[in-house]
Amino acid sequence: MVLLRFALIWAFKFVFCVARRTGDEDELLPMPDLPGKNGDIVDDPVSDVNPVTEEMFSSWALCILLFLLISALWSSYYLTQRRITAVHETVLSIFYGMVVGLIIRLSPGHYIQDAVTFDSSYFFNVLLPPIILNSGYELNQVNFFNNMFSILTFAIPGTFISAVVLGIIIFIWTALGLEGINISFVDALSVGATLSATDPVTILSIFNAYKVDPKLYTIIFGESLLNDAISIVMFETCQKFHGSPARISSLFEGIGLFLMTFMVSLLIGLFIGILVALILKHSHIRRYPQIESCIILLIAYETYFFSNGCHMSGIVSLLFCGITLKHYAYYNMSRRTQITIKFIFQLLARLSENFIFIYLGLELFTEVELVYKPVLIIVTAISICVARWCSVFPLSRFINWLYRMKTVRSMRGSIGNSISIPDEIPYNYQAMTFWAGLRGAVGVALAMGIQGEFKFTLLATVLVVVVLTVIIFGGTTAGMLEVLNIKTGCIDENDNSDDEFDIEAPRPSAPVAGFDSMLQPYSDDESHAHASMALKTPAVSATLLSDLQPPPTPSPINASASRVSLDTQQLKETFGNIFFNSDSQWFQNFDEQVLKPVFLDSNLRPLKENGNQSQTIFDPSSDQ
Amino acid sequence: MVLLRFALIWAFKFVFCVARRTGDEDELLPMPDLPGKNGDIVDDPVSDVNPVTEEMFSSWALCILLFLLISALWSSYYLTQRRITAVHETVLSIFYGMVVGLIIRLSPGHYIQDAVTFDSSYFFNVLLPPIILNSGYELNQVNFFNNMFSILTFAIPGTFISAVVLGIIIFIWTALGLEGINISFVDALSVGATLSATDPVTILSIFNAYKVDPKLYTIIFGESLLNDAISIVMFETCQKFHGSPARISSLFEGIGLFLMTFMVSLLIGLFIGILVALILKHSHIRRYPQIESCIILLIAYETYFFSNGCHMSGIVSLLFCGITLKHYAYYNMSRRTQITIKFIFQLLARLSENFIFIYLGLELFTEVELVYKPVLIIVTAISICVARWCSVFPLSRFINWLYRMKTVRSMRGSIGNSISIPDEIPYNYQAMTFWAGLRGAVGVALAMGIQGEFKFTLLATVLVVVVLTVIIFGGTTAGMLEVLNIKTGCIDENDNSDDEFDIEAPRPSAPVAGFDSMLQPYSDDESHAHASMALKTPAVSATLLSDLQPPPTPSPINASASRVSLDTQQLKETFGNIFFNSDSQWFQNFDEQVLKPVFLDSNLRPLKENGNQSQTIFDPSSDQ
Repeated sequence: MVLLRFALIWAFKFVFCVARRTGDEDELLPMPDLPGKNGDIVDDPVSDVNPVTEEMFSSWALCILLFLLISALWSSYYLTQRRITAVHETVLSIFYGMVVGLIIRLSPGHYIQDAVTFDSSYFFNVLLPPIILNSGYELNQVNFFNNMFSILTFAIPGTFISAVVLGIIIFIWTALGLEGINISFVDALSVGATLSATDPVTILSIFNAYKVDPKLYTIIFGESLLNDAISIVMFETCQKFHGSPARISSLFEGIGLFLMTFMVSLLIGLFIGILVALILKHSHIRRYPQIESCIILLIAYETYFFSNGCHMSGIVSLLFCGITLKHYAYYNMSRRTQITIKFIFQLLARLSENFIFIYLGLELFTEVELVYKPVLIIVTAISICVARWCSVFPLSRFINWLYRMKTVRSMRGSIGNSISIPDEIPYNYQAMTFWAGLRGAVGVALAMGIQGEFKFTLLATVLVVVVLTVIIFGGTTAGMLEVLNIKTGCIDENDNSDDEFDIEAPRPSAPVAGFDSMLQPYSDDESHAHASMALKTPAVSATLLSDLQPPPTPSPINASASRVSLDTQQLKETFGNIFFNSDSQWFQNFDEQVLKPVFLDSNLRPLKENGNQSQTIFDPSSDQ
Repeated sequence: MVLLRFALIWAFKFVFCVARRTGDEDELLPMPDLPGKNGDIVDDPVSDVNPVTEEMFSSWALCILLFLLISALWSSYYLTQRRITAVHETVLSIFYGMVVGLIIRLSPGHYIQDAVTFDSSYFFNVLLPPIILNSGYELNQVNFFNNMFSILTFAIPGTFISAVVLGIIIFIWTALGLEGINISFVDALSVGATLSATDPVTILSIFNAYKVDPKLYTIIFGESLLNDAISIVMFETCQKFHGSPARISSLFEGIGLFLMTFMVSLLIGLFIGILVALILKHSHIRRYPQIESCIILLIAYETYFFSNGCHMSGIVSLLFCGITLKHYAYYNMSRRTQITIKFIFQLLARLSENFIFIYLGLELFTEVELVYKPVLIIVTAISICVARWCSVFPLSRFINWLYRMKTVRSMRGSIGNSISIPDEIPYNYQAMTFWAGLRGAVGVALAMGIQGEFKFTLLATVLVVVVLTVIIFGGTTAGMLEVLNIKTGCIDENDNSDDEFDIEAPRPSAPVAGFDSMLQPYSDDESHAHASMALKTPAVSATLLSDLQPPPTPSPINASASRVSLDTQQLKETFGNIFFNSDSQWFQNFDEQVLKPVFLDSNLRPLKENGNQSQTIFDPSSDQ
């Protein structure tokens, strides 16, 4: 706590210093906080400011923002170190942002205030892509595909139901005219879409810390990822109908537009991911790992901007580009690029996440034009719970029903009735999914795009509701895990397969090396020690290893099949869970037999030949 | 070449597409090219543009820039792959920038044109820091300290002489009034300072490719790095006297200001670097490598902005922060952070470098207000050669003279006369140092800050001269290396010590693993294979290794002493080269005996105890 206090005192000092400066030299802070204040220097009235002075001011503003980031990260370290679960990193980020925002608001001069307002273009172009890309790249693909049906059900109809319910409630409330607000149904639906994007950051970092059952983790992760994409597409579809009278035909047009956008974006992402894999396969660029990693990073970003530029959804493209990159291109990369790309994605994503929450906090005080309507905020806050309820519970029932039908049919009545069949998504998982519906920065960024007379009222509402959900739901998640009796401390073998330099060899004794450092802080360092031991004398160890018979391990096909979470595996053994895995099964076979041979480099020892070497080892002899 | 042509065609297509769009919807492109268009959305007249539309335009602009970057990198790969040395990556980047800049200039609408103009604040806050940080971090410290005297001589008096000579020539030329330009001496000196910053990018990447003698490499690298810092400080000092009459007292004031700024900035950098080392030592943050790497990256940037905010030189601080980080903090980091930080610094630096050159090319055509005075440009281009000549050759003579004096005195006349003593810097090295004086983006960015009536004339002059030097000197460096008979293909043992996952164990047979991939493309992949072999089964190899006696290797003190370049070592053996190494020698001893025990973590097995383990291995038992 001493450190926290120290950090806060410093933040105060910095900001006051800047604020005083700004107050004194009133004309000198054109737009100092963000890295890319740019081109319009020519027609900007303040462009005559000496760049050196200007640079100094932007330096201070950046200094403050970086300092806030460092504080947030340090607090995060402190919290995990002391195992404090009541307060979460994101909540602290918002809090720091709010404190500094308040100081900026109270201090004289409005330049900093103008400068730190949340800018949606900045958010969408700089902060969001790394998070989405990293999510796609880090996705546990086997778990994801195994739970595909549940995820898609929650994501697509779920978001739709949530947005519509929320839209209707808000429309009815505003139509009552109690607060002098009157918005069209399309606008209400826009707000609904905005507030249907659940946040993939906070809840998942808590889940990670507790090692929640991978199945639940995957469902909530997948849902919140696709959620974002879908509510963005929905919002944009709604905005296209802004101002025009609502018709039934628009509904179908909207749905058509939505599906088209989603599918095309998905295809762009897949296409570029595969393209990268093929480029890597057919060029020798892996000999120059520095260039290789730059190019992969750039192409991933290019996907995002290209898709956005084509009026498609960059977020969907990027997500699927990330997934494809990991699934195919990864195996064609040089070892160094594999490591670089992974670490860079993680680092950028982490910085972006923290930055976003700091910004959300700042925004509450520094956005001057916001109009706060307390009753509307309360109504909205309650109605997002209602909307979430309406989407999670009925859809869970539907999934469970379908699962039961399928299982019964597959067993052909060998047991009899369906009473003994456990639910695909038991009640406590449903409740947790409901609880995990906290809203994030995507909603706020979307809300910046709301048009019309009541723009700032709606924006303020969305902002406050988002912050409230993060604080309330985020702060109580750890408690809810206990209350709902959710299985924690699960060892997801696959989850750590990429940690510590991507050691992907199947571990016969999983608990030896790969625990998350949060629960077993020393094992992490031990594995470091091992890794660096192994690294230090590569020639020696390689020579030694080549004399050894590798330990008998399952072949990769079996290995990837064994990558199912423990829970699912138990179920499968008992009930022959055909429906929920059959879809992914045929794809896995097709993938192994057709796609991988086409996309992966045969010069890299292929996955199937050597069961014990599920690693991309470059074979120099085959290439020369 | 097919690929190049393909790339160009695509670049054309993209730009035309955007240009047409911009022409049509004239009001819709407020400032789309850079990530951080920000805060002033409130008082901006175009702020009512729908963020979704706005986002689309910024997406296209970013798409083009990323595409240019990808093309530049791909060309670079292509050139190295085909071993084409006539054209260099940076020249191609400038060329691509020029082509796209020309298209933008010719196409209708001025929004893109406004948007892509070079912005100095953007340059200083986003593009420059990664390059400097990486330079400091990658610096071969032993070579650097061994050649400290030469580097400092070239950097400090050298830059000063160059700036003054250039300033005087430009002042005299403009005072003649042939072109209707009339600038004060202080402004002429500013331009001189601007054009004295040599570029550390192009020449060094060529040197790297050819494996030029590490001594020459280190001198030119060190000079160009410090050069930048010093010309920035000089320029800012000059700007403080802008408008005031030139007095003799201002000269001394200026020099005092310069030295003060330099020293304080240096101390800030050192202080923060050491602070990071101590924080890492006294906290357990290395257990959470993700947070650790974020924090180190952020603190490095914070150094830069803090120093700039305090009216000091961020570039000097950042450079020395990078050096200190590598010298102390590096050994307290977790293994994963060591790798992450290194790769991220490299990647960011590479992207920034390419981006800067693309921008320089763009700038030539898209900066509308530039006033080109051909004769002034030619005069300036000639006079930078004169200025460089005046600084390099006399100072080299001075260094050689001093070296000879010292050597003779240390031998106390045992041989007799000084004829048999070779030069510290022989003539071909002097000529190469002269040739390496091509100017870079720092100059252009500084020139953006020139004030007064003839701002745009001077800016245009600087811009064209910089591009000319990069094309002429950069394009002929490879040839000059041959003409001057410079030793190439040197294996600098230290140079690769960090490559391939920072394998730092001393290599008894250096040529086995660590060549640069450019000359020996396959060895790189082989070492990858070894490394990943070693990585895959850490438990096994660690067990095996623990049973082995490590190979006998020199203790780290000797090891670091052996990190001298081959050339210097030979000299030392022959002549007892005391002067040029005595300074670094006492520091090395002091460092090993006092500083390192204080700053490095004793829980990480210290460097001295185990000579064979010059690696930071975490010892779990000592911490529990």
